[in-house]
Amino acid sequence: MGKFKSITLEWKEDRLILIDQRKLPSVEKYVECQTHEDVYHAIRDMVIRGAPAIGASAAFGYLLGAKEVLASSKEVFFDHMDLVKRRLSESRPTAVNLFWALNRMEKTLNTLRELDRKRLVESLESEALAIAEEDIEINMTIGKNGATVVRDGDGILTHCNAGALATVDYGTALGVMRAAVEQGKKISVYADETRPYLQGARLTAWELMKSGIDVTLICDNMAGWVMKKGLVDLVLVGADRIAANGDTANKIGTYSVAILAQKHGIPFYIVAPLSTVDLLTESGDGIPIEERSHLEITKIGDYQIAPEGVKCFNPAFDITPSSLITGIITEKGIARAPYDVSLKKMFE
Amino acid sequence: MGKFKSITLEWKEDRLILIDQRKLPSVEKYVECQTHEDVYHAIRDMVIRGAPAIGASAAFGYLLGAKEVLASSKEVFFDHMDLVKRRLSESRPTAVNLFWALNRMEKTLNTLRELDRKRLVESLESEALAIAEEDIEINMTIGKNGATVVRDGDGILTHCNAGALATVDYGTALGVMRAAVEQGKKISVYADETRPYLQGARLTAWELMKSGIDVTLICDNMAGWVMKKGLVDLVLVGADRIAANGDTANKIGTYSVAILAQKHGIPFYIVAPLSTVDLLTESGDGIPIEERSHLEITKIGDYQIAPEGVKCFNPAFDITPSSLITGIITEKGIARAPYDVSLKKMFE
Repeated sequence: MGKFKSITLEWKEDRLILIDQRKLPSVEKYVECQTHEDVYHAIRDMVIRGAPAIGASAAFGYLLGAKEVLASSKEVFFDHMDLVKRRLSESRPTAVNLFWALNRMEKTLNTLRELDRKRLVESLESEALAIAEEDIEINMTIGKNGATVVRDGDGILTHCNAGALATVDYGTALGVMRAAVEQGKKISVYADETRPYLQGARLTAWELMKSGIDVTLICDNMAGWVMKKGLVDLVLVGADRIAANGDTANKIGTYSVAILAQKHGIPFYIVAPLSTVDLLTESGDGIPIEERSHLEITKIGDYQIAPEGVKCFNPAFDITPSSLITGIITEKGIARAPYDVSLKKMFE
Repeated sequence: MGKFKSITLEWKEDRLILIDQRKLPSVEKYVECQTHEDVYHAIRDMVIRGAPAIGASAAFGYLLGAKEVLASSKEVFFDHMDLVKRRLSESRPTAVNLFWALNRMEKTLNTLRELDRKRLVESLESEALAIAEEDIEINMTIGKNGATVVRDGDGILTHCNAGALATVDYGTALGVMRAAVEQGKKISVYADETRPYLQGARLTAWELMKSGIDVTLICDNMAGWVMKKGLVDLVLVGADRIAANGDTANKIGTYSVAILAQKHGIPFYIVAPLSTVDLLTESGDGIPIEERSHLEITKIGDYQIAPEGVKCFNPAFDITPSSLITGIITEKGIARAPYDVSLKKMFE
């Protein structure tokens, strides 16, 4: 205990080390988080991204918060933990795994209020490590469940990065691809580059190339044409939050891909752990959509690609209505419409 | 006679000067073409782009070709002009205005085979200047015709740059916007940035800002979500080639935008001069689609945004089937389905 290492994050007893996903694939740089505030900044500034990876990082952030006040009075300690939870909650608004992980950590804290401080922190560390380890197991189960919809020879389109880097390891949508390949199926992946942050170009293309899975990079606006040419048999994407009725928040552009898939009669699947399902949010209308800086659109690195002062609209996510979703692949199987029934059932 | 100047191109008796559209808006640089070969490179390397602008530039390229062999024998002269036409034809394959302009120049040459060489070159110069001047007049007529479909307060989405810079001046899709604004209508434009070459971010946003027309820059993958949010009442885009049945080749991504517009019940118009209509090509299946270098996708400036060696697919255009097109706005009015009838009629 006390140590954990995956492609995305490493826990080293007193600090969380994250691969800096803003620099990949050109530079392999790491960011060290020694306080909950460091983790807050790492999530907000997208050193780490992807709903399950955000969840696991926040759990370690909560743990770091507890270590900050180990020697304080009980009152100060618990007040501080409230602050830590609130602060980490504010890092990004859309991915529900963030709140799920923080609630799980807080629950651990609350069941242990009577323990001594050292054992309490040990329990929190245990819980954070469990979240990280379970994430990998869950993704491998998701992969197996999802591989059933992949046929040998399929062309698969994906958007953004729902890979190892978006989770603790293995990935969700990319996990399904890995599982299919492990079963001996041959697949060709089309990766949308995913503007403005280019997670597809920088992360998905890189991950798949490293894993020896055939990948072709395209610009987002080519997805429809690639479908029209008959190159896509299946769409697999991740999720940042799935409402009780199946409406799904995912990276901006997912909604357009879902419409294009429908128009071409191509199955469109969401791939996510149940920790991404938010039964308390009835429909997509209730999911907050983060808007990010216009600098993400007008600049690439230091390179100015649009006129100075141009007005931009930069929503980080959009909502795909459940009517466009063929199925939601989870660790408990594949949910199908009506989703309000099938998703609820998975929590029983 | 002998001189002409617009935002896009300038003719200075013995040379063609083009604003370098690869550098805009950061740098306002000009490229001088003194030979037909210079013009070939300027078109191929996208110093100048946009179907009508390519057509006009090719006309001046043809003229420069004639000037190169002014003192040669009649046989050498006409052989050279065949070579010039073929070379310029090979600069880019999709925009039909290129072939239209070259055919028009060749026709002028052929009707004048008996004239003395100096008068022949004068006639070619006359014809090239006529093509350039007519283009502006045609665009202003297109603008008036198209403004009838724009309502006060409309949100208008456009893709790529069908503006002054894509033509000799005034623009086609952006010309309609200009005409609507000149009529006192208030509009809000959403400009797709248009990867990989970013004509929307670099050229359309810049042009509209300079003209005082309200513009919001979005990434291509946001178009569907902006429509879903009710911000778009109308889509206006240009064209590189329109087949006899109305199928339209335009910048990659146009096909996806057309599907998204249909899904949201938003009128989708093509805006182009009749020189973009190719009655000899029956349908979109007959239009050649240029594929360009993967470097356009993997690099922005010198900045590497994807893994080294990644496989890419980079079609420069796609085909929007006429079934997705509400109307084709030309200088002869607005063609409506069935386009095989309505387009043919416009040439009578």
